[in-house]
Parts: sequence; C-alpha cells; structure tokens
Amino acid sequence: MAGSKYTIGVDFGGTYVKLALVRFTDNGYKIVGYSFFSTREYNRDALIEQLVIRIIKLKAEHTFKGHRVRGVGVGVPGRVDFNNGVVFDLTNVPGWKNVRLRDQLEKKIKLPVFVDNDANLMALAESKFGSARGYKDCVCVTLGTGLGGGIILNGRIYRGMNFAAGEIGHISINENGPVCACGSRGCAERYVGNRYVLEEAIKRLRRGAKSSVIDLIKGRYSNLTLEMLSRAARNKDAFSMILWQEIGRHVGVLLASVVNLLNPEIIIIGGGMANAGKLILDPIRKIIKERAFKISCHNLKIVPSKCRDKAGIIGGATLALTDKVRE
Amino acid sequence: MAGSKYTIGVDFGGTYVKLALVRFTDNGYKIVGYSFFSTREYNRDALIEQLVIRIIKLKAEHTFKGHRVRGVGVGVPGRVDFNNGVVFDLTNVPGWKNVRLRDQLEKKIKLPVFVDNDANLMALAESKFGSARGYKDCVCVTLGTGLGGGIILNGRIYRGMNFAAGEIGHISINENGPVCACGSRGCAERYVGNRYVLEEAIKRLRRGAKSSVIDLIKGRYSNLTLEMLSRAARNKDAFSMILWQEIGRHVGVLLASVVNLLNPEIIIIGGGMANAGKLILDPIRKIIKERAFKISCHNLKIVPSKCRDKAGIIGGATLALTDKVRE
Repeated sequence: MAGSKYTIGVDFGGTYVKLALVRFTDNGYKIVGYSFFSTREYNRDALIEQLVIRIIKLKAEHTFKGHRVRGVGVGVPGRVDFNNGVVFDLTNVPGWKNVRLRDQLEKKIKLPVFVDNDANLMALAESKFGSARGYKDCVCVTLGTGLGGGIILNGRIYRGMNFAAGEIGHISINENGPVCACGSRGCAERYVGNRYVLEEAIKRLRRGAKSSVIDLIKGRYSNLTLEMLSRAARNKDAFSMILWQEIGRHVGVLLASVVNLLNPEIIIIGGGMANAGKLILDPIRKIIKERAFKISCHNLKIVPSKCRDKAGIIGGATLALTDKVRE
Repeated sequence: MAGSKYTIGVDFGGTYVKLALVRFTDNGYKIVGYSFFSTREYNRDALIEQLVIRIIKLKAEHTFKGHRVRGVGVGVPGRVDFNNGVVFDLTNVPGWKNVRLRDQLEKKIKLPVFVDNDANLMALAESKFGSARGYKDCVCVTLGTGLGGGIILNGRIYRGMNFAAGEIGHISINENGPVCACGSRGCAERYVGNRYVLEEAIKRLRRGAKSSVIDLIKGRYSNLTLEMLSRAARNKDAFSMILWQEIGRHVGVLLASVVNLLNPEIIIIGGGMANAGKLILDPIRKIIKERAFKISCHNLKIVPSKCRDKAGIIGGATLALTDKVRE
C-alpha cells in the first residue's frame, strides 16, 4: 500500500513469545502477519535462534510482496539497557542476565533492532494507537503476574537514568507492610499481583469462607483462577466481590499517590486482571477521587487498555517505527 | 556588565515576601538588590500593592545604572495556573483564591511576569545554579512546614496537566495511616511536616520521655523548636536522635518509591529541616539504598540544597529569564 510502513513487533512474555508484522498508515495499524511459540520450551540460546527464524520468515513472506520491513522492536518482561539493547535480567524467565539481545538479533536478521521493557512498549502502544491517543502525559498500569508501569511524558517513553523508571508496582503503600520479592516492604504489587491475590483468596477459603467458587475448584485450591473470581463476582458472589474491591482499593491508593506526584492526563489500566472490567475500575476510580487532590483529578481519565493483549506487539512495532535514531 | 541579563525574583512565603534583583552571566548569578517585608502585615490587595512598590523600586534603582530588567518571576506557596498566572489558592495565607496575580502585577509594573509554585522554582534554581546543575532529571524535596516537591525532567519543570504535579508530600506511605489535611491517609507530609514532628515530640515528652531539650523549653512545650531537637541530637541526646532517624526513615521510604517510579539522576533535599544535615540525610540515604531497586540507585545522588534559603528568589529570577515564551 502506498505510504505504508512495515515493522515487526515482538512481545516476549513469560509464557509465549508473540510476533507480528505490522503495517502502519496515517490512520493506524494493521497486523498483516502473526506467529508465536512457547517461551518455556527453549533455553536462552535456542529461544533467540527460534526468534530469528520466525522474524526472517515473517520478513521474507512480506518482502516477497515488494515491501521493505524497517526494523524490529522487542518488548521483554524485565529491565533493559535501551541504548545498548542489553537485557539486564528477566523476572520470570531463567538464564537471562546481561544478554546483548539487540546485537545478537541484528547480526542475523540484518534489520535495526530495538529492545525495551514490555510495560514501556504497552504504554507506547496505548499512547500512539490506543486509549491514550492524543494525550501527552500518560501513566499505563499492567495488572497481571506483576504490577508493571510505563510512563509517557510529552508523547515519549520516560525511561529514567538507568532505564528503570516506571516500576509503579514497587511504590510502597504501607511502609511496615509485608516483605516484597524486591526486598522492600508493602509494595503495591505485594497486594495485587496475581499470585498474592490467589494466595489470599485460598487462605480465606481454607478458613471456611463461603463462596460459589468452591464448587468450581473441585476440592483443589490450586485450581482457583482469577477468571473464576471475576465470573463469581459478576454473579454477585459476596466473597469474590469483596476481593475485587480490595484489589481496586489498593490500586486506587497507589494511583492517588501517582496522580498527586505526576498529575497525568490519563491513566490506562491493562494486563490480564483488567479483564475484570468495572469490578476493578469502579473502586479504583472511587478511591482516586477520594484521595488525590481535587485539582489533579479535574479532567483526569482512568480507562481500560484498548490494545489489550496486542499492546506488547503493537508497542514493539511502534518502537521500531519511531525510534529510528537511538537516543 | 556586558552580556549580563537582569531579572527580579520574588519568593512569596507564608512569613516573608522576599524579592531580589538578580544579574545573570554565563558563569552564574549575583543578587544585586534585595528587599523583604512581612506577609502577615498585609491583606491580599495591600500585599500586591506593597509588592508592586518594591518591584518598581528595585527596577528603578537599577534602570538608573543603564540596564534593562527583563521580567519578574514569582514563586507562591500553593497551586498556580502557570499559563495564565492565576493563583488557585495558598495553603497558609488566607484570602488567596483564584487571584489573577500575573495580570495585576503586569498592569502596574510594565514587565513580563511569571507566577509558579514555589517548590517548582526551588527545583529550577537547583537545576540551573545549584546542586543539580548539569543533571537532566531531578527531584527536589523541601522539608519544612509542609513536604513540597518539584520535578525537573529533561532540564525543564514538569508541571502536569493542571500544573499540580510534584505533590511528593501527598504520596501515601501508609494506606491506613492517620488522616492528612488533604483528606487522604498516611501522606508522607502527615509524618514529617514541622508541626507533626513537634506534636509527636511533645506527646512523648508529656508521657515522661527523658531529653536534654526539657531544660531548654522552660516548662512550656510550645517553646520546643526543631532547632533545639537538631542541636540536642548533635550532642547525642538519644530522644532527639531517634526522632530524626524516624523522620529520615519516613522520607527515605517515600523517596525509595519515587526512585522506583522515576529513576532520577539526583534528589535534592532542601527546606528548613534540611539544616539538620547528616542527622536526616544519613537515614534517608540508608533507607533508599535498602528499599529501592539496586539498578535505580546506581549513580543516584542524594544531596542537600545548595541555593538553600535563596532557592525561591533565584528560581523566580531564573523563570523570568528562561520562560520568555509561555508554554
């Protein structure tokens, strides 16, 4: 298509590596090629090799049609030296310490490669093509295994001195709270990360709490999922409703602090838990309104992610499009 | 002096209004004229009139020597619509609601006027001429009556959507903590603002705690000051040392969260309480190192203010120099 630009976005997750060839036009984007594979089937070197094979294939299929692919953007679940494309470490994928991912990929695929933190790329996707389109200053929160964050200021990803900014889940909402995996205390993630929510729910059920989810887990607490809890809450199961309210409350307290500090125009709520919709958005909105400065809440938007599970690949593809010059 | 530029900076505080004519050269600044008056002696309109008289006098004295004054920058202790120069409200000065301070001043003094929040201007002063000179991303904290903050990103004041960003004292460090004057709970300011620290100290003394400050207050708890507590702590008074450690700990918890969120290059500690020096800086540094991500602490500077009690007027004068074009 005339005027179109093509890039490849890679969403390197703890469970799957997803990649897509994306066509950008003045009006938006379209995924024109897609591929994925299981993260856990490969060790580090084999995973990089598999990624190279998939990228080359996507590129080849497309070059065949006469278009040039401009570059590749990769989002990874961990900390990244963005300028040098080095992955410092990945929280949930073993074997990734100080990996020169950009150089390794560029050598084999002969395209410019950009590597960034996945939450940053989700924020970029929302900012350019999602719920935050048209806004300058945006905070993007991903509620899932962890509580990640990406900050867009003046339309650009804000990365901080060591590319480590945006760790919104490790703002402490209780200085004397439980110890977090990061070593601090009372981090918001320690209250609302998937694992902690399920642990808390199971603890309460073991103590004899009544809930409709008991029928669903068939006697095994480990069968409990957040989907069960959100479906039950929608069917007015009091146990589950309270649990979602508590999650929303913790996130609301956290975001009220962020609103007071950054006074953003818009906050995007994404990640798996955002699928609970109003169950979690309503208490978040309520608590922010109660706790943050009135002036900072004026015109503040708090909305769900639009790119949803595509945010990672779209963000990666967008990065390859916009960051032609390294900073 | 050839190549020099002159502006007037105004530091509108709860106790005094201070103003200075400042000469800027390539190497720095020099205060070449100074004046102040008591805030509390004037109601709103009389205060503006007094300010106009003082500004015109400073300007006249200088114009006499053949130099042009470019503008006036005013820092106020409250929220400001920076683009329109409107003061929304002032926390500790009654009678200031939605005051068009810029227009009122410009009409009478015939110079461009800029009005901003005082903590923003302190951060600007430190960024251009103080401890944060040469750094791009800086967080400035002022520990005094309140716990204020200014954020410099990419060398510029970050103001947020409603010019309300930087309210670092109203990040909650305890979601279930005591109610703050702002309506939220467990805000950092609620633990470390002057008033709360003195209240806490008096409570403990009333309960029979032993301390060398008891001799100084001559039987009246209301005589207790932070200066007494910092002098006593330097002389190894255990009661006072513990108090400063606790203040430092609360501020450290707060700043660890800010470091995780923004990954700044440098944090400046200013305001009256910063005069306690190592008493407060040491525990702040220790707690940040314990609680924030190691990667974000790498190369992080945590230093006292250099402009100190001049930060307000220097920041105001700098604003009038740099913000020639309104944003």
